[in-house]
Amino acid sequence: MGSNFYYKLENAWSISNSMVCVGLDSDINKIPEFLKASEDPIFQFNKSIIDATAKEVCSFKLQIAFYSSISAEQQLIETIQYIKENYPDVIVILDSKRGDIGNTAEQYALESFTRYKADAVTLNPYLGGDSLQPFLNYSDKGSIILCRTSNPGAKDLQDLICDEEKLYIKVAKLASTQWNANKNISLVIGATYPKELKEIRQVVGDNIPFLVPGIGAQGGDLENTVKNGKNSNGTGLMISSSRGIIFASSGSDFAEAAKKETIKLKEEINYYACR
Amino acid sequence: MGSNFYYKLENAWSISNSMVCVGLDSDINKIPEFLKASEDPIFQFNKSIIDATAKEVCSFKLQIAFYSSISAEQQLIETIQYIKENYPDVIVILDSKRGDIGNTAEQYALESFTRYKADAVTLNPYLGGDSLQPFLNYSDKGSIILCRTSNPGAKDLQDLICDEEKLYIKVAKLASTQWNANKNISLVIGATYPKELKEIRQVVGDNIPFLVPGIGAQGGDLENTVKNGKNSNGTGLMISSSRGIIFASSGSDFAEAAKKETIKLKEEINYYACR
Repeated sequence: MGSNFYYKLENAWSISNSMVCVGLDSDINKIPEFLKASEDPIFQFNKSIIDATAKEVCSFKLQIAFYSSISAEQQLIETIQYIKENYPDVIVILDSKRGDIGNTAEQYALESFTRYKADAVTLNPYLGGDSLQPFLNYSDKGSIILCRTSNPGAKDLQDLICDEEKLYIKVAKLASTQWNANKNISLVIGATYPKELKEIRQVVGDNIPFLVPGIGAQGGDLENTVKNGKNSNGTGLMISSSRGIIFASSGSDFAEAAKKETIKLKEEINYYACR
Repeated sequence: MGSNFYYKLENAWSISNSMVCVGLDSDINKIPEFLKASEDPIFQFNKSIIDATAKEVCSFKLQIAFYSSISAEQQLIETIQYIKENYPDVIVILDSKRGDIGNTAEQYALESFTRYKADAVTLNPYLGGDSLQPFLNYSDKGSIILCRTSNPGAKDLQDLICDEEKLYIKVAKLASTQWNANKNISLVIGATYPKELKEIRQVVGDNIPFLVPGIGAQGGDLENTVKNGKNSNGTGLMISSSRGIIFASSGSDFAEAAKKETIKLKEEINYYACR
């Protein structure tokens, strides 16, 4: 049950038997040299990664900054279209962390859901509920709200104590109650803070999915991430890995290497999720 | 003195004798009908507005969502280039409210300063100081950080009391002290909250410029905005108006109407700034 977005995510977990989210942070400076002669090197890179890993993941996450910094919007569109046409059960997340007021937020919702046709978008809550509403109104699309991020500086604001609880707990409560009328909210919580993951899961209960970056390059602890973040069904997580998977090899075997890392991560997650 | 960005802004205030910032929120659905036959209607619209108003403003602000929602990045680039070539003293603000961690923030800094060549960019502080640092490192560029926004939902997070002071005061203090080593920070504070403007000006002192949206369509009170927000030199503000200026007329006299509204706003601001 629940909204189309929750249903689609349940379906993706079930079909893939995976809580892995592969992050297509396809930095043009890091993709294999031999691809760079192509007219659309990032799309060619993504296509190979997608074909190698799509059956082993619940979602792909596309970090828009790696595309917009080099005027590669068209390759972002083509990548999402390729996933939709070939792997329609996999959730596509546009990681753009948008946040703005009323009529501007509506334009960003168009960017996310009409231009790029993502299934879900990441959002920044600093501007409050009315800034999120234009996204939340798309009841079949996911709104994935930053709660406790994976970087060291997250503490500057998110850990401040407001009325006897930390700001990220306030955000978790607002998101899971006041803002979730359409049952399409998820939260971003960094794997680098497993204690906080546990606390937030207790606060929001079973129904809110978490997008969890910070595994791998950022040093998050997988065992505690899974144990503390999963819901009582043993799901509830999209655990995102980018560099550790897509740049596992810089040679012509890059896609095969990515597949190997994806399966390894999937199996580790499933091992801890059953315990 | 101060950084190149503060110097450039002082220069812009001085040359134009104006604290008006015209917001080029050039919604394709709202520009005059007769322009829509053009190949680049938004650029043509902007060009006319810019030529009519550039001598009367300290800055132009471009809300990227109105461009990215309709794949009009090229017209955004052309608009900024046009301002730089013809009115080099006017500050160009990319209003994109970016906020992300380490290597992604670096990509967004490239988007802002290398791709679009803006003089300043708006940023969201929820992810903390390390997420802002890649922007702050561009010491000649302005980092304009959301502090107290103009929308009703701003209260959801920004007004929470953290250690006996509101969250937006925490942000103002962090921004004006810890984060401002390169003297290139400004703050966004909505005109709809003149009491908060006064409080923040007292906290940060004279040196931090404020970008103030919320005049006009959003109902901000100009007299109290200017009196409460100005610094002791009678400057310190970029007061932004978008719809009230650029859509003042929907006929062929749209640029002339925009000029008239700009001059009216400039003179009102200057009247209150001297009192």
